[in-house]
Amino acid sequence: MERLTKQINFIKEIEKLKTIKRRNLTLDNGRPENSAEHSWHVALMAVLLSEYSDTVEIDVLKVVKMLLIHDLVEIDDGDTWLYDDIANINKYELEENCANRIFGILPDDQQDEFKNLWREFERGETKESIIAASLDALHPLLNHHATGGDLIKDERISVKKVYEKKKVINKGSKVLWEQAKKIIEDCKQMGIFTD
Amino acid sequence: MERLTKQINFIKEIEKLKTIKRRNLTLDNGRPENSAEHSWHVALMAVLLSEYSDTVEIDVLKVVKMLLIHDLVEIDDGDTWLYDDIANINKYELEENCANRIFGILPDDQQDEFKNLWREFERGETKESIIAASLDALHPLLNHHATGGDLIKDERISVKKVYEKKKVINKGSKVLWEQAKKIIEDCKQMGIFTD
Repeated sequence: MERLTKQINFIKEIEKLKTIKRRNLTLDNGRPENSAEHSWHVALMAVLLSEYSDTVEIDVLKVVKMLLIHDLVEIDDGDTWLYDDIANINKYELEENCANRIFGILPDDQQDEFKNLWREFERGETKESIIAASLDALHPLLNHHATGGDLIKDERISVKKVYEKKKVINKGSKVLWEQAKKIIEDCKQMGIFTD
Repeated sequence: MERLTKQINFIKEIEKLKTIKRRNLTLDNGRPENSAEHSWHVALMAVLLSEYSDTVEIDVLKVVKMLLIHDLVEIDDGDTWLYDDIANINKYELEENCANRIFGILPDDQQDEFKNLWREFERGETKESIIAASLDALHPLLNHHATGGDLIKDERISVKKVYEKKKVINKGSKVLWEQAKKIIEDCKQMGIFTD
């Protein structure tokens, strides 16, 4: 059962994703959200909101798989914050190395599937990767709105910068983008973003 | 856009799942795992391990959806520990109330889908719910094996009781049950379970 041993080793290795901290909050005493919780939340968003994709006939299972695995590449070097332009320069190379190590634990067919899914997500050229990226960008806005965004307030991020960074939502869904704009304005009123 | 408003309200409400503590550990300083992290982990296990279901032609998307939502019913009253026989007596009623409230936030078609998926999971009579239950029972064993199980060691749970509680794994997959038995024996060697 070498195949199952590899799969079990992978499942134990990715336990580490629960230790990767993000700049989102949770509702329990200001704890930073981790990338495993985020991945759960955005995968469930895909089940509920894929219907708003501007392109039709979305393979929802593919979107969900993409979102369940999209952050595993953070396990070796952590999450890179969207608004940290300098850290984002080397992000892809570090994540590519991690993808090869982590997915490399799996049996050949499953490592090929996961590497391909992750690269497809990163490239953002297919209908599934485009709506997945929209949902991934929408999720932190909903989190800030639900939790108050105390981990980013002090950074004084301007609404203009938020619009620039979040326009990827519009690429996947005009409906979700209209919703995102309302949430961004609400977040400004709440003092999470600045003018 | 009343439909989207309901969906967004639901997505913000289930933020609370990240505050529901379990008797599993994470790798960061003995923090208890929460039910959102668990749901992510076991949903990804479904992608990798559904191939071991004793029945064939599994609808993997259905299994993944079930596992993404199966613990949302804990939001109002918390997680009930598997080995706490008294707390388990009233579990279903409390969870049924929570299911009606939480899923009731969604548009009618999606609340029907999620209520039905949850009830199907609880009943455990279909091939998808049977393999989902196997994976849900296997996950804590893998977590204890990976993290040391310090949150349950002091309870001195006997291997006999573990076999009794975990035999549901065998209902879905003989292959996964053989693997589970090895992990249970390993956990005994590690002092997590007793003779």
